[in-house]
Amino acid sequence: MFRPKHRTSSPQKSLIAETIAVGSELLFGGRTDSNSLFITEALGGLGIEVRFKSVVGDDEADIVTVLKAAAGRAGVIVLTGGLGPTVDDCTREAIAKAAGRRLARRKEAFDGLTARLAQWGRVPNKGQLRQAMIPSGATVLSNPVGSAPGFWLAWRGATVISLPGVPGEMQAMMREGVVPLLSSRLERRRGMRRRPITRLVFHTWGLPEAEVDARLKGLVPSGVPVALGLLASPMGVLVSLTTSPRANAEERILRNLAEGVRSRLRDWLFAEGPDTMEEVVGRLLTEQKRTVALAESCTGGLIGHRLTQVPGASAYMDRGMICYSNQAKSDLLGVPPDLIGRYGAVSAEVAIAMAQGVRERSGVSVGLSVTGIAGPGGATAAKPVGLVYVGLSAADGTSVTKEHRFHGERTIIKQRSSQAALDLLRRWLRDGAGS
Amino acid sequence: MFRPKHRTSSPQKSLIAETIAVGSELLFGGRTDSNSLFITEALGGLGIEVRFKSVVGDDEADIVTVLKAAAGRAGVIVLTGGLGPTVDDCTREAIAKAAGRRLARRKEAFDGLTARLAQWGRVPNKGQLRQAMIPSGATVLSNPVGSAPGFWLAWRGATVISLPGVPGEMQAMMREGVVPLLSSRLERRRGMRRRPITRLVFHTWGLPEAEVDARLKGLVPSGVPVALGLLASPMGVLVSLTTSPRANAEERILRNLAEGVRSRLRDWLFAEGPDTMEEVVGRLLTEQKRTVALAESCTGGLIGHRLTQVPGASAYMDRGMICYSNQAKSDLLGVPPDLIGRYGAVSAEVAIAMAQGVRERSGVSVGLSVTGIAGPGGATAAKPVGLVYVGLSAADGTSVTKEHRFHGERTIIKQRSSQAALDLLRRWLRDGAGS
Repeated sequence: MFRPKHRTSSPQKSLIAETIAVGSELLFGGRTDSNSLFITEALGGLGIEVRFKSVVGDDEADIVTVLKAAAGRAGVIVLTGGLGPTVDDCTREAIAKAAGRRLARRKEAFDGLTARLAQWGRVPNKGQLRQAMIPSGATVLSNPVGSAPGFWLAWRGATVISLPGVPGEMQAMMREGVVPLLSSRLERRRGMRRRPITRLVFHTWGLPEAEVDARLKGLVPSGVPVALGLLASPMGVLVSLTTSPRANAEERILRNLAEGVRSRLRDWLFAEGPDTMEEVVGRLLTEQKRTVALAESCTGGLIGHRLTQVPGASAYMDRGMICYSNQAKSDLLGVPPDLIGRYGAVSAEVAIAMAQGVRERSGVSVGLSVTGIAGPGGATAAKPVGLVYVGLSAADGTSVTKEHRFHGERTIIKQRSSQAALDLLRRWLRDGAGS
Repeated sequence: MFRPKHRTSSPQKSLIAETIAVGSELLFGGRTDSNSLFITEALGGLGIEVRFKSVVGDDEADIVTVLKAAAGRAGVIVLTGGLGPTVDDCTREAIAKAAGRRLARRKEAFDGLTARLAQWGRVPNKGQLRQAMIPSGATVLSNPVGSAPGFWLAWRGATVISLPGVPGEMQAMMREGVVPLLSSRLERRRGMRRRPITRLVFHTWGLPEAEVDARLKGLVPSGVPVALGLLASPMGVLVSLTTSPRANAEERILRNLAEGVRSRLRDWLFAEGPDTMEEVVGRLLTEQKRTVALAESCTGGLIGHRLTQVPGASAYMDRGMICYSNQAKSDLLGVPPDLIGRYGAVSAEVAIAMAQGVRERSGVSVGLSVTGIAGPGGATAAKPVGLVYVGLSAADGTSVTKEHRFHGERTIIKQRSSQAALDLLRRWLRDGAGS
């Protein structure tokens, strides 16, 4: 959901961008698209708005078709992929064909390529030599990370840029080559009204999307050129404020809107910008010099995995126990078997006993636990799939547990359970826990 | 990388498809695109090839632009998203505008919508009533899961299909509405040469992409209409064989090629089709009635998380210890502190001691361990970031350890380490472990 409240006029074509990802395997999807986010943000900083994204296979004729459609609607076209050394890598050929250029070996491309391969102790083979073939009239973009050079050319009023699909190579070339290029090209056009696109992102947990929507209703006054976006996922609801490149939004207005998001979403807001829940929790633990130990049942190690995604986690992450069997809960955490017998392994009582057990046995500041039914098996009439208890036990005497009833399949219930547990820890840390 | 070895002729437009995902948040990317995989496979089964994918924001004029380009190159156009109840959901309006149709409330759409909401104890609000507005001449596609109906219409020689973006709703409507529809439309065209697209997928671990490429060189004889694809990721190299809808590949030929992939990739091949490493390992453990316990250091719980993604994991997953601190390695696994002092926590000796310790203390068939330096901190001259040891200790007396030197950032080293550990377990299980 997204609300473009405002459109003043059709913007100049040179401020509209399209990305084209080349690769037959990409047509099957099922993978995370991290290149888009990077390119959209890098161009947004120049006031250039990515309004179209295309994906096409390694097929010269199909790439030509897509390029022609793109040149009709966008002034900046960024292609990624299809620059490799094999015969099916045909982005070079397709661009040359679409634009009516000749392909020829270019000295600076060849020199960069052979120098890079020499660094790796290799000499270019026939396929790699093809990577130095550049359309006539194009300018080579050197690759500071890998072997394939990129290039750009002007065609039909558009700047066509061709980069490798490998994220690290693409990112370095965007930063070092493409952004300075586009910036200087825009500067040369007098009277061009460029406004960097600013996008502020807010992460919430614990409110359904409809509730977030209701709380933000009327936040952006009509006529203010800022778009409010919502995106729900198992990890919560993301809220975004995006300025339009088509009209001015003063910085003060955006600041006020951000304040409005914060005050309306209160402590359901757990992070801003690129931060994740585990980074927020890790930062609080580091600042407060606290240590944590985990007792995980249905999450199976996911909370430990998430906490240790953050560099420096060894400063606060002491240990975790994945206690899948009841025997393990008793052996490792000292949960009395008769407590499990009385209340069941999935209960508030056992969640607290797990958190307390892991904290006492490891000597950390705080113990965090999860026990629940991730499904599809294991449910009873009284305890359905999705019933999850998170627990926290701290050396200051705090002892909290929270019941959740999640929906969805096993992997989603695990994700939501890990988020609920980390949020319990975040709230305890934020509230200035005792000793 | 993808090798279209063969193209007989330009196929009929009705066998070429384009997907259009509508949603401004999608332009920022950074999320897994699971809808593509589903749609591409469902259409492939009918012999319809998805050759173009587009993404566009919630902007009526931009959607119209994309639709017009799509109708020029594809005979089947599947739009997802933009059918919600808010004002920025404008896929209905854009399709009506592009095709020159009138939008009006349609009885069957309205009845389906109100019946669904009544089930949830709600009455439609103004926004939800908009969801019953359908372009004239379009046929309603009912939504068996959610509230928003879809629809399809014929325009410029293309079948334009509009579905919600929510994966569960889209999938149900593809299965129950779209596939039967397209199938009957294709059947009515006489002389149409339909060939279901078959895609076989093979997963390898432990060989670099260039080595997989070299081993498969010359596998598909020239003239055989099967494309060989490779895709590298931190979890290994995926190999695909895809038949062309444009020429006949006999089933026998595909079977032989699959056999060729298996014999050339031998035991580096760990799974086929949609299977993951954790599913393969889980199946072997279940079949052999074995149990496993984990001792994870640098993976921080990721192996436990992965093993417990599989329904039924409680049959073989007993417990896991996330031993981030040296203290935890001694306390929980009985690794002698002087062993850590002599060889360092990241060593083959400690990996074995961890695997043995967790196995003996939990009484399972096999203990699996990882210790390594995920970075960016913690490296020394002798022990660089990416140095990882995986260890296995079994009740039958087997004791194995393997050293790895991985490249990449922290999250990638964790992924590769978890894959290496699970592969060690897979190989031990496959080789008919002792008692």
